[in-house]
Amino acid sequence: MVIVLKPGTTDREKDHIVQKIKDAGLMPHVLIGEERTVIAIIGDERAFQKQALTALPGVEKAVPILSPYKLVSREFKKEDTIVEVNGIKIGGNNVVVMAGPCSVETNDLLTSIAIEIKKAGASILRGGAFKPRTSPYSFQGLGEEGLEYLSEARQRTGLPIITEVLDPRDMPMMAKHADILQVGARNMQNFKLLEEVGSQSKPVMLKRGLSATIKEFLLSAEYIMSAGNPRVILCERGIRTFETQTRNTLDLSAVPVLKRLTHLPVIVDPSHAVGKTYLVAPMAKAAIAAGADGLMIEVHSNPAEAFCDGDQAMLPDDFKQLMIELDRIAVAVGRTLSLGTPASTASTP
Amino acid sequence: MVIVLKPGTTDREKDHIVQKIKDAGLMPHVLIGEERTVIAIIGDERAFQKQALTALPGVEKAVPILSPYKLVSREFKKEDTIVEVNGIKIGGNNVVVMAGPCSVETNDLLTSIAIEIKKAGASILRGGAFKPRTSPYSFQGLGEEGLEYLSEARQRTGLPIITEVLDPRDMPMMAKHADILQVGARNMQNFKLLEEVGSQSKPVMLKRGLSATIKEFLLSAEYIMSAGNPRVILCERGIRTFETQTRNTLDLSAVPVLKRLTHLPVIVDPSHAVGKTYLVAPMAKAAIAAGADGLMIEVHSNPAEAFCDGDQAMLPDDFKQLMIELDRIAVAVGRTLSLGTPASTASTP
Amino acid sequence: MVIVLKPGTTDREKDHIVQKIKDAGLMPHVLIGEERTVIAIIGDERAFQKQALTALPGVEKAVPILSPYKLVSREFKKEDTIVEVNGIKIGGNNVVVMAGPCSVETNDLLTSIAIEIKKAGASILRGGAFKPRTSPYSFQGLGEEGLEYLSEARQRTGLPIITEVLDPRDMPMMAKHADILQVGARNMQNFKLLEEVGSQSKPVMLKRGLSATIKEFLLSAEYIMSAGNPRVILCERGIRTFETQTRNTLDLSAVPVLKRLTHLPVIVDPSHAVGKTYLVAPMAKAAIAAGADGLMIEVHSNPAEAFCDGDQAMLPDDFKQLMIELDRIAVAVGRTLSLGTPASTASTP
Amino acid sequence: MVIVLKPGTTDREKDHIVQKIKDAGLMPHVLIGEERTVIAIIGDERAFQKQALTALPGVEKAVPILSPYKLVSREFKKEDTIVEVNGIKIGGNNVVVMAGPCSVETNDLLTSIAIEIKKAGASILRGGAFKPRTSPYSFQGLGEEGLEYLSEARQRTGLPIITEVLDPRDMPMMAKHADILQVGARNMQNFKLLEEVGSQSKPVMLKRGLSATIKEFLLSAEYIMSAGNPRVILCERGIRTFETQTRNTLDLSAVPVLKRLTHLPVIVDPSHAVGKTYLVAPMAKAAIAAGADGLMIEVHSNPAEAFCDGDQAMLPDDFKQLMIELDRIAVAVGRTLSLGTPASTASTP
Repeated sequence: MVIVLKPGTTDREKDHIVQKIKDAGLMPHVLIGEERTVIAIIGDERAFQKQALTALPGVEKAVPILSPYKLVSREFKKEDTIVEVNGIKIGGNNVVVMAGPCSVETNDLLTSIAIEIKKAGASILRGGAFKPRTSPYSFQGLGEEGLEYLSEARQRTGLPIITEVLDPRDMPMMAKHADILQVGARNMQNFKLLEEVGSQSKPVMLKRGLSATIKEFLLSAEYIMSAGNPRVILCERGIRTFETQTRNTLDLSAVPVLKRLTHLPVIVDPSHAVGKTYLVAPMAKAAIAAGADGLMIEVHSNPAEAFCDGDQAMLPDDFKQLMIELDRIAVAVGRTLSLGTPASTASTP
Repeated sequence: MVIVLKPGTTDREKDHIVQKIKDAGLMPHVLIGEERTVIAIIGDERAFQKQALTALPGVEKAVPILSPYKLVSREFKKEDTIVEVNGIKIGGNNVVVMAGPCSVETNDLLTSIAIEIKKAGASILRGGAFKPRTSPYSFQGLGEEGLEYLSEARQRTGLPIITEVLDPRDMPMMAKHADILQVGARNMQNFKLLEEVGSQSKPVMLKRGLSATIKEFLLSAEYIMSAGNPRVILCERGIRTFETQTRNTLDLSAVPVLKRLTHLPVIVDPSHAVGKTYLVAPMAKAAIAAGADGLMIEVHSNPAEAFCDGDQAMLPDDFKQLMIELDRIAVAVGRTLSLGTPASTASTP
Repeated sequence: MVIVLKPGTTDREKDHIVQKIKDAGLMPHVLIGEERTVIAIIGDERAFQKQALTALPGVEKAVPILSPYKLVSREFKKEDTIVEVNGIKIGGNNVVVMAGPCSVETNDLLTSIAIEIKKAGASILRGGAFKPRTSPYSFQGLGEEGLEYLSEARQRTGLPIITEVLDPRDMPMMAKHADILQVGARNMQNFKLLEEVGSQSKPVMLKRGLSATIKEFLLSAEYIMSAGNPRVILCERGIRTFETQTRNTLDLSAVPVLKRLTHLPVIVDPSHAVGKTYLVAPMAKAAIAAGADGLMIEVHSNPAEAFCDGDQAMLPDDFKQLMIELDRIAVAVGRTLSLGTPASTASTP
Repeated sequence: MVIVLKPGTTDREKDHIVQKIKDAGLMPHVLIGEERTVIAIIGDERAFQKQALTALPGVEKAVPILSPYKLVSREFKKEDTIVEVNGIKIGGNNVVVMAGPCSVETNDLLTSIAIEIKKAGASILRGGAFKPRTSPYSFQGLGEEGLEYLSEARQRTGLPIITEVLDPRDMPMMAKHADILQVGARNMQNFKLLEEVGSQSKPVMLKRGLSATIKEFLLSAEYIMSAGNPRVILCERGIRTFETQTRNTLDLSAVPVLKRLTHLPVIVDPSHAVGKTYLVAPMAKAAIAAGADGLMIEVHSNPAEAFCDGDQAMLPDDFKQLMIELDRIAVAVGRTLSLGTPASTASTP
């Protein structure tokens, strides 16, 4: 850490700061410049409370040098983490596609969508049983019934399922049904929930909060890893900006930034980011071109009747077409995207 | 709601949309303009899924006319809500000041700060026992021990206490100690927690999320009220913007906007918004000038040793001085701020 | 436009509003709902001052239905505009790459970079002679001397040149040298400059302002077109958000949004958006995958000595490699990117 | 400046960086830590191109210690700058109110508003003759005719006038009429215009850009001062955020931040920030409570007929009332606000 002193700081104040740093077991280096005096701290600054220093008399600011996260960092672990779920690898050279409806509605509908997306080449089924909704008057999900439909759809198709957990009290129920637990954007800093998913063994997909910096995003992932669960998947899903043409602004540069800072796999959810169906396909392609390890895409066979987010859902046929186009992009960036056997014959039913 | 059709929408598509609206028990009015056809919906549009409409072929956009919240709205209840806690009225003509340390640290420290702020005129003691921290390696609060210290401080000073609840499972413990439950900015859309605090009887102070629109903020308050608890207090505490000189940007215009849209009392927390001690006093004054019903201010007798947020805490003496200045502003806007009996003699110790 | 009345608006107020609308030559339709009365306006609402209506007693809000721009809109002109410069087509199926240094520094350096990027397949040379710099103490560009070097580089390579115009008074000088005039992000709402570039005949590339909505961006393009110049190229270059890992946040969803709203070609400048060299290649690829008509990329043979923005410049060899990868993405999305004759033999010098 | 090296940087790379720093005439201090090596630079880092350093191999980041502006800084000049215009002091203990219509419309209307605001205690008349409008189809101002009306209003009332300059070519015309030149938010980084207003002698009020950081704002003021004009007034007028209830978000914490960083006077324009009349009064009061040196407020005798921004204009009578309330706030914070002779008898009609 580097401590910048205010101009006119007294020697006594400076000595006090130096002593504080020594008290913390660190080594201060005082550098007297023309306009400012700077104290550089040698040692693991994480041991130090940044706030404690900036509240000392004479301190103008404290600039951290090291990143505040550790386990999730690329420095801690150089090689890419690959999270394996029922034989499907997330991370590595393969590009994984998760697809399905926003919320689970009926058993039949879910199963039919699951069959369609599998044919198209998706390898994981998404579907919300518990839905975090902005309004208390919106459909809140089927709850445990929805989880059961998901289990049935998995049985029928063999696709592992990913579904969102909202409440730490639901963990036992979730453990029975889900293959991957999703922590949604609104809960990215629900630290009790992070601790809970961190202290069980199923993989966790953590979505970036609407106004979370990448540093905060990684610190939330650090919560999960430091609680004992190394199987963490990150998901960029758009940040809040002033632009209103899209629901949120998909921050695709977060993909290569994250790939540099962390070893964890990075998924992109274009559907929630843009909030309009016609924008999903171009942003899905862009995500893979930017280096994403996978996608999460909403598919619904009747968007106009969807219980939630019908605005952004793709029809199964459009999804099939998109998968073919995504495959071309994956190849162009030297990666592979499984299209599923039946998908290759999709045009001749 | 007003449905705007795309140019070139067919009659069949239009008829389908009209039928959908009728199916929902509402009355469509088709208005054919030169460049666009518009369908106005008469009736309570809240009965309608906005998404369902925009996903219909031919629809360009759907513009809601009514606000999506109801119980919290000024239209639903014209007169100001006053939340009473142990005889202290939040809302109404009085300006209430909540003060105390960011986190509860030791019993002695807490009590001494409580005595100081009471002398200065504060009427509610704040202090975190459970702290939501960005990093898993930061101090997370004393937990139940902290709640006990708060109870003791209340016993000593008579000040009711406000403290943050992070986990729905902690509710019974909270109910034993807290007078007001605080839901923090990061949990503003933790809907399970909102339901939980909504289904008990203690007052709830809901902080605005870092990137929450005022509409979303009110919808989160609606969660609490619709779960059965009408004693909701709103708190503006800064929103996330591009500016880095302050921790967040305090949106003081939210105060008069909220006072127009809702009957609930509005508190401002300048300490967390700005994150730097020297900015707290001017922003506290500005908040009262803007019409806030109260303030929440961090006070610590030794900020440089504070376990969290020492950067923004005021010294008790500075707080005392601020209270005197706040009183003048309150008077200037036709309101009253209790200065506490001993405070009036503070200058003659 | 749709006018929403406040609850409790009197008949007299309503009649006054209705009269105002008729006075403007438009037709009001009054729709009386259960909770709100709405007045829909039939006719070209652009004739109306939105503000004038919202300031009338009784009006809660006015919701425009039509977009405020006209000449730039896809409704006004269905087919894609192709801007041709010295035989190079911007827009259409071809993907165009503009490259070069941030600022023009020396004649030799500029020419050598121009030769390199041409070899790699770039078809337009970029370089700033007048630089808009945040600090008055930063290098402000070589001025007219820089323009002359650009002219010489064009003569040597045949590449048309694009350069930024900062001052309406520089137009005659610019007209002598530039092939495409660039209006930078900071000048997107410098309306006098927009009028000036709109009243001459050279193509104009307009960059999106740091905090410009897409609607404002299109209205600025409308300034240029309505002044008489139809040869407008749009350029997304990142918007300002709270994230600090990148200089700005590249809003790639703006590409498909713009392609739907306007007929004008859309270029992406990843270099300025991200501000770090290692992020330029993934974002360039993503831009083409998202449907961009071209790219503007900073290339410098010695970034550490660059007079400006060395942080984000690519080395010529890395740019060559990127062009090969971009070509694959272009093919994958059914478009073509000229790699330049020498580039195809680049690996065997 | 502090240079943080990447982990694994070679000695050769390090030596190269050290040499670069010495070449710039500065002194490098190499500090080898456990996880990172840091090089602190002693001397005036402004002499150094930050970019040049970060583009060097081995450099992870460069953290500046000194602020990049100089003349505008509080360190450069400790005492508050007071800008005097026709005997009116902007800055210092007095709180100055500028008021008037958004745009100049007719001679009679302007004069009548000028008389009204003077009566209420305003000391400077505002009015736009050249209006920067988002749409080319909106009213663009009366131009020179508007300037003449302003001159006449000044002659009638004695109030100095402030009006916006959009184009460097208009400077001679402006010099004839205006007492204070305003540079609007959209032109805050129109550097040619800044140089122009900096090289003449009239005071300049510089508005903060919609997405300008405080650092950028001060650097734009530095442009004006470094061009030779020390009479600069800063104006906070709202920044762009995600919130849509207000036109922009008024960043009142910018007031105390600026008062600490710079010696220049700070004005607040609540009208443009919030964009709705009912919000102007509370935010005007809050601005003075936060420490602003003055206000700019839009007043129009018939907002519904205003050529622009009628939404946010106050009626003269409401403005009169506001001035009385502002006076109380000014007194409460130990400052004075002149109420004008007739205004002091306003309460006894």
